[in-house]
Amino acid sequence: MTMNYCTLCGSKVYRKIPAGDNRQRYICAGCGLVHYQNPKVVTGCIPEWRNKILLCKRAIEPRYGLWTLPAGFMENGESNMQGAAREAMEEANADIRDMSLYCVFSIPHINQIYTMYRGQLHEGRASPGYESLEVELVDKDEVPWDELAFPVVRETLKLYYRDLEQVGFNVHYGEISRTAEGDIDIAMFS
Amino acid sequence: MTMNYCTLCGSKVYRKIPAGDNRQRYICAGCGLVHYQNPKVVTGCIPEWRNKILLCKRAIEPRYGLWTLPAGFMENGESNMQGAAREAMEEANADIRDMSLYCVFSIPHINQIYTMYRGQLHEGRASPGYESLEVELVDKDEVPWDELAFPVVRETLKLYYRDLEQVGFNVHYGEISRTAEGDIDIAMFS
Repeated sequence: MTMNYCTLCGSKVYRKIPAGDNRQRYICAGCGLVHYQNPKVVTGCIPEWRNKILLCKRAIEPRYGLWTLPAGFMENGESNMQGAAREAMEEANADIRDMSLYCVFSIPHINQIYTMYRGQLHEGRASPGYESLEVELVDKDEVPWDELAFPVVRETLKLYYRDLEQVGFNVHYGEISRTAEGDIDIAMFS
Repeated sequence: MTMNYCTLCGSKVYRKIPAGDNRQRYICAGCGLVHYQNPKVVTGCIPEWRNKILLCKRAIEPRYGLWTLPAGFMENGESNMQGAAREAMEEANADIRDMSLYCVFSIPHINQIYTMYRGQLHEGRASPGYESLEVELVDKDEVPWDELAFPVVRETLKLYYRDLEQVGFNVHYGEISRTAEGDIDIAMFS
């Protein structure tokens, strides 16, 4: 994100590689503070209930009206898994229990890392939260594959149904990148 | 981190819960920009060579002079695994290959998430980088358990030697917290 002023003293910042570093940072011309910018963690889950999973129809941009798994930016002061549970509660009033880590995706071109859990949707109960138009429990044949909000959601669900039908659940990790032609490229390492 | 001024326009910021949100953010009194603050990802690895692993003696604060695994803050524009490889190169001139995700730790009280990989140290070659006083290949009996820099390094190595001797390698995840008495509390979920 572009930065013009120092958060600490309000002076102008400039770009330079600090001593002992190897990439350009924003540095304050007044107080000298180096401002680092780092990737953000998005954490979410696949809420399971009997043979179905819970999807949410987005009520916010980006991808308004498309379907997603409950997920959002991890907050300071919480664990990764707590963040996934919080997002399910916020987006779908869903109480998720017995969570286990399922996949970790890096998305370097948008400076994000996604962590997704599997978890039990307590008593199968859910309803739309502030950021959702609808929530729905679906089986595999009902997943709206052409109306999913993000590539990472599609990949997570593809892995999920493959594991469900074949080899059992393992932790997966991989990278999602965008080619020069604008296509999405997926590399899985497990 | 405390924030006084807006990065975009340089006006003063104040604390408030934005509409549709549920926690206090820094908001610019001039342009209205909401400044989110989120956890940072630290990524690193256990470099393996024959029956030994590589440790680095820190040449920087915090924990100057104590031993650690190569690890550091993930940067924008790289994947999580690329970050782990980069840190090994920077701290130990170590070329790490065939990496696989090994553990994910949340550390909520310092707003961090640690991802650690296992990987092969190419040709067993390493030497101290800018941030290391020494690097050393050690077997289990040579690990300086009382001189490790961080609890997360100790836990990673405990898991590693347990898996190595017993059940094989799985992906682990857990949380490291600090109790009111100042003790370190570890909760592992796999």
